Amino acid sequence: MKAVVYKGPFEVAVEDVEKPRIQHPNDVIVNVTSSAICGSDLHMYEGRTAAEPGIVFGHENLGIVEDVGDGVTSIKQGDRVVMPFNVACGFCKNCTAGKTAFCLTVNPGFAGGAYGYVAMGPWPGGQAEYVRVPYADFNCLKLPPGTEHESDFVLLADIFPTGYHGNELAGTSPGDSVAVYGGGPVGLMSAYCALLRGAKKVFVVDRIPERLQKAEQIGAIPINFAEADPVEQIKDQTDGEGTDKGIDAVGYQARARAAGEGREEPATVLNSLVQTVRATGALGIPGLYVPADPGGPDEQAKQGMLLVAIGKLFEKGLRMGTGQTNIKAYNRQLRDMIIEGRAKPSFVVSHEVPLDEAAQAYQKFDKRVEGYTKVVLHPGR
Amino acid sequence: MKAVVYKGPFEVAVEDVEKPRIQHPNDVIVNVTSSAICGSDLHMYEGRTAAEPGIVFGHENLGIVEDVGDGVTSIKQGDRVVMPFNVACGFCKNCTAGKTAFCLTVNPGFAGGAYGYVAMGPWPGGQAEYVRVPYADFNCLKLPPGTEHESDFVLLADIFPTGYHGNELAGTSPGDSVAVYGGGPVGLMSAYCALLRGAKKVFVVDRIPERLQKAEQIGAIPINFAEADPVEQIKDQTDGEGTDKGIDAVGYQARARAAGEGREEPATVLNSLVQTVRATGALGIPGLYVPADPGGPDEQAKQGMLLVAIGKLFEKGLRMGTGQTNIKAYNRQLRDMIIEGRAKPSFVVSHEVPLDEAAQAYQKFDKRVEGYTKVVLHPGR
Amino acid sequence: MKAVVYKGPFEVAVEDVEKPRIQHPNDVIVNVTSSAICGSDLHMYEGRTAAEPGIVFGHENLGIVEDVGDGVTSIKQGDRVVMPFNVACGFCKNCTAGKTAFCLTVNPGFAGGAYGYVAMGPWPGGQAEYVRVPYADFNCLKLPPGTEHESDFVLLADIFPTGYHGNELAGTSPGDSVAVYGGGPVGLMSAYCALLRGAKKVFVVDRIPERLQKAEQIGAIPINFAEADPVEQIKDQTDGEGTDKGIDAVGYQARARAAGEGREEPATVLNSLVQTVRATGALGIPGLYVPADPGGPDEQAKQGMLLVAIGKLFEKGLRMGTGQTNIKAYNRQLRDMIIEGRAKPSFVVSHEVPLDEAAQAYQKFDKRVEGYTKVVLHPGR
Amino acid sequence: MKAVVYKGPFEVAVEDVEKPRIQHPNDVIVNVTSSAICGSDLHMYEGRTAAEPGIVFGHENLGIVEDVGDGVTSIKQGDRVVMPFNVACGFCKNCTAGKTAFCLTVNPGFAGGAYGYVAMGPWPGGQAEYVRVPYADFNCLKLPPGTEHESDFVLLADIFPTGYHGNELAGTSPGDSVAVYGGGPVGLMSAYCALLRGAKKVFVVDRIPERLQKAEQIGAIPINFAEADPVEQIKDQTDGEGTDKGIDAVGYQARARAAGEGREEPATVLNSLVQTVRATGALGIPGLYVPADPGGPDEQAKQGMLLVAIGKLFEKGLRMGTGQTNIKAYNRQLRDMIIEGRAKPSFVVSHEVPLDEAAQAYQKFDKRVEGYTKVVLHPGR
Repeated sequence: MKAVVYKGPFEVAVEDVEKPRIQHPNDVIVNVTSSAICGSDLHMYEGRTAAEPGIVFGHENLGIVEDVGDGVTSIKQGDRVVMPFNVACGFCKNCTAGKTAFCLTVNPGFAGGAYGYVAMGPWPGGQAEYVRVPYADFNCLKLPPGTEHESDFVLLADIFPTGYHGNELAGTSPGDSVAVYGGGPVGLMSAYCALLRGAKKVFVVDRIPERLQKAEQIGAIPINFAEADPVEQIKDQTDGEGTDKGIDAVGYQARARAAGEGREEPATVLNSLVQTVRATGALGIPGLYVPADPGGPDEQAKQGMLLVAIGKLFEKGLRMGTGQTNIKAYNRQLRDMIIEGRAKPSFVVSHEVPLDEAAQAYQKFDKRVEGYTKVVLHPGR
Repeated sequence: MKAVVYKGPFEVAVEDVEKPRIQHPNDVIVNVTSSAICGSDLHMYEGRTAAEPGIVFGHENLGIVEDVGDGVTSIKQGDRVVMPFNVACGFCKNCTAGKTAFCLTVNPGFAGGAYGYVAMGPWPGGQAEYVRVPYADFNCLKLPPGTEHESDFVLLADIFPTGYHGNELAGTSPGDSVAVYGGGPVGLMSAYCALLRGAKKVFVVDRIPERLQKAEQIGAIPINFAEADPVEQIKDQTDGEGTDKGIDAVGYQARARAAGEGREEPATVLNSLVQTVRATGALGIPGLYVPADPGGPDEQAKQGMLLVAIGKLFEKGLRMGTGQTNIKAYNRQLRDMIIEGRAKPSFVVSHEVPLDEAAQAYQKFDKRVEGYTKVVLHPGR
Repeated sequence: MKAVVYKGPFEVAVEDVEKPRIQHPNDVIVNVTSSAICGSDLHMYEGRTAAEPGIVFGHENLGIVEDVGDGVTSIKQGDRVVMPFNVACGFCKNCTAGKTAFCLTVNPGFAGGAYGYVAMGPWPGGQAEYVRVPYADFNCLKLPPGTEHESDFVLLADIFPTGYHGNELAGTSPGDSVAVYGGGPVGLMSAYCALLRGAKKVFVVDRIPERLQKAEQIGAIPINFAEADPVEQIKDQTDGEGTDKGIDAVGYQARARAAGEGREEPATVLNSLVQTVRATGALGIPGLYVPADPGGPDEQAKQGMLLVAIGKLFEKGLRMGTGQTNIKAYNRQLRDMIIEGRAKPSFVVSHEVPLDEAAQAYQKFDKRVEGYTKVVLHPGR
Repeated sequence: MKAVVYKGPFEVAVEDVEKPRIQHPNDVIVNVTSSAICGSDLHMYEGRTAAEPGIVFGHENLGIVEDVGDGVTSIKQGDRVVMPFNVACGFCKNCTAGKTAFCLTVNPGFAGGAYGYVAMGPWPGGQAEYVRVPYADFNCLKLPPGTEHESDFVLLADIFPTGYHGNELAGTSPGDSVAVYGGGPVGLMSAYCALLRGAKKVFVVDRIPERLQKAEQIGAIPINFAEADPVEQIKDQTDGEGTDKGIDAVGYQARARAAGEGREEPATVLNSLVQTVRATGALGIPGLYVPADPGGPDEQAKQGMLLVAIGKLFEKGLRMGTGQTNIKAYNRQLRDMIIEGRAKPSFVVSHEVPLDEAAQAYQKFDKRVEGYTKVVLHPGR
């Protein structure tokens, strides 16, 4: 079958690889109809991780079940399903506690696994015609048959729940004001979910006009940090007080405001949030921070050690929640909101392309050219 | 009246100052029978803050009501009361939300006020014969008449609720394992409260034998970090997994393990906790961090910027709660546990002395000599 | 001054009564610009309570502060304020715990007080030119100056927060389906708040076309129980499963479906909810039930004892929350949602009339004629 | 193999039945070393349900894994395991939400399944030499090898978590006062768990001296309802206020206080709790109520309709949680508390007998003679 294979920094290719097959009674094989490219795929693509050539990318997968293991109960051939990016067993201590992003079973020696990702276990990605899904009863979320809402549903694999998770970590309540740093797909989903949860006022901080326009379209207030200090801009619009909650949808590759496109300043978003959020508030950090970053700007950053305004954070009594999203905690109700017409997250999808064009799509997405914001591949269509 | 007055670094004196009087209809004047010295008083005592000579110390106050303003409803002359260290109005946005440590009324321009503390508002301390208590209906917690449990009840002003708050921030649940860094009064109270909340296994990390012995007496497991890496010691006793929760009862004056008594390493406890607590766990940070520390070991630390293992913290999906304790959220039920004989926190009190001996008590407590762990002054006895 | 005075069953009159004055340092006197008539006023109006002639009605009050006691800190003459219907002290055990509907101070011997209501303490109502507000710092919520949003803001005194409370009791989360029984003002507010909180699908059960139309206008699904069993209608629209949550916005004066306008069947809504909500769900009961109802249809009902389907409720593992609304827990953020344009609850207001016309307004509202749904009186305009 | 078989009202026999075998890749077969008799077994034993002769009883099972299906990942032959009484799939909507007592898979058409229980699905009980456990990765909780704590661990199948669940439903917090109605095994476990969670004062209401003695032994306050009205007794010991929380560990077979051993009054405990618990409190109802009780004292009771003091319940603003226990939500941490020596629930076990003596044990337990309180059978020893 065809699949997107990592060849080395800044290079992927669509190649023939072996088609997956049932290896365990609880497996299913899914014919992938949609698989999105994630910002975190670019970390590997850019050679910013330990990923070795040969890995098949793709952790945001949706498709039609083609083959079903003997132990599977609730999933049948022909079912349309979407899978959380995190592979999870459903029965370990963490999965039982709802922390499926930290499964202790699927990636021995580490808490958490994923499809098509370096160091996340032996699970080939789904930017391919087929993908093997283990513990299928647990990992497959059933969708209505047909092709409706395809671009909305595929976002249930990662970024729509991840935007929701950011709010869950921050504890966004109806009537809250929320500052979201980062207007990429996860930032836009975070703002969108804040509004779905009843936030009164949501700010999205970015510098890219297209992103800020999308933020405005969904009812958020765009803050262009290239124009002025975003902390001041937000305080000006909150009676000098700051927001109730803050969400970091950028992570460790944040760039210094003054530095233009140049220098990374990994803690700048985190520390801006400490300034932006009012005393007694909370921060949700869905944006990725890593304990080892070969490309970090200094020795400490390479080891995931960042200079954080912990004194101010404590003085304000802030709370902070971090970590990858337990997708299963949210994907069912978010699916239902899509079905009922209460949510339509696909507004972030900028491009839908056949699998064959994956290499170009990666290139353009990586450079953020031609409005490439969120790309969905369609291997199985 | 007599009061403990700050004279300058490493010097306090008991001097005559003006006796407080009712200034507002909601005030009461309390004749102080017990006022404890807090570890945070030592920050001022050591000249480690902007405190100016002349300030009257004392934020852990208990006594008998002597005079009552016209607006006060529930407090009568002769009532025995204990006051939270945080002065709070009871009606601002933060107080209404239960965040009384961040009152917006009592210390204009800042979220939070306290008695006898630099930059915490115009509220003279209670290491004195009398103290004025504003918003008395809100700030006074009534105690049974008499003198019973005096040393337990005085701890309701700060460290018993603060130990509880550490657990609340960490979310300690029955059956949890908990690592408490720091075996001083707040650390011991944190361990004690973890056990009251049903923790299965509580570790207390310190190097001072007396503290470790007290930890053991209450049912915690002492970890002497002078003997070996505390992270490894705790992992060895948790099947290599680490604990469910962690509490930082040290704060920014933490010292490097290797450095003996010498060099401060302000983030060492925080980063040890990131190593100690297992993925999906949570950290409670009652230990004080400050945005400006003139005595910090480097330029960043002086501004409250510390190198934090944020990459690892995120990878583990840890949550973190910080900030001063909203005493009123806990002092009523903790009082009742004392009355019912279910809690007896006074085991941490090492010395009870008359007000006259305050200067020597400060000296010895600051040097941690002669077993000075927690000192209660008795001005009004 | 003029005030709405209860004269006896089915009779109120606008009469001259003594103007209130400051009686305690924490009082303010408010010139009432808006005071709404509540469905619960009708319980008294209909002689269905122990209310004696002479009582001044009105617990949904908004106005301008005219006089301020010496002890008041945050409220100034000229401030525009709205008061929770529940009078509360702010410092008793229940108020401190956020349960302001159960204040232990303001109505000795009972948990909870209110303005202008039988057995709720010595607090004359605000359907009058002036009203005295005790513990004013705690009970007044400040509004922007002017007259904007007057009809929205007055609903902050009771029914907008009460609709929110129904959802809080039921635990409505984003993506939930919710069944609201009762399409009166509280039912409509409950449905409106469910949608603000992100519910995916909200049903409103009633028989009155105007109410069902309003439900539909705000995005809820109208269920006319005169046409068919509402339980079946709702199950048909939820794949046979029932809803996640249910809200009883009717209370003890519910009428049997078959009985037309005739016979009351006090537990019919409660028991319908047990059928409507799916296993593991939850019920929020803001609708009033009383321990003594002289007009109850049988001996048990007169004592507040109703036949409840407790066997089925248990089998389904339902949770249930009841009781009057702690308005202060919600009124601040709901106010802010109004200010930011995210909420506009005044769609339920059907009539705004001067104080002089109160008697007729009561008559028509009690008979539900001429579309009288929610009436706001304007004494001070 | 041998098993306890229901023969008809008041009769069970140990008979030979077919030994279970692996029927699905996710099954395991467990050699049962301990299986407790539950009070709810007596409902069937007494002919108070629709149970047909031939059913094998036993839902509190612990043993050694003998055979393992191909799909099972985490359980190996020889593992010592205890199973929740509720059979659950681990992947349906309710299981994923942690509501394993309401599994939608294992008992089609109903929310919830169990071993050896009428209408709870096709799962033979474990009062037998062997039991088949489906979805074994999810349903087996691993125990330390050996035989230590056998009588403690077997209680993890039901009553220890059920006592905990009662407190979870009521929201028992440190410092709470709690009234437990019923001093049988579940009542004692409820009181025990309240104390483990830090309750300040726990009352146990019963009339049987042995039960009241056990309550006192664990630190609870015994209330003999045969001596005086338990509501008054408890109010006398709580300053007239009542308790913060209440737990119903009796259920629908409650008997009227005045009626001696004679007449059942199914709602008497529920209504006593409404009187006992203070305004703003909460009730946890682990005690069983059923929608169909052929032996109910009147027509309504036979349909699970009981006269409940809903008026008073609402006036007090009480919350109420009901339903069978989601054992998996608690069994892991309670197991760990046993291992760490922090909990020892086996104090409730009165008798341990070989399987052969099951018939006599049922007889004596049903009559509550010879101190039969909680019986553990040992089929496989």
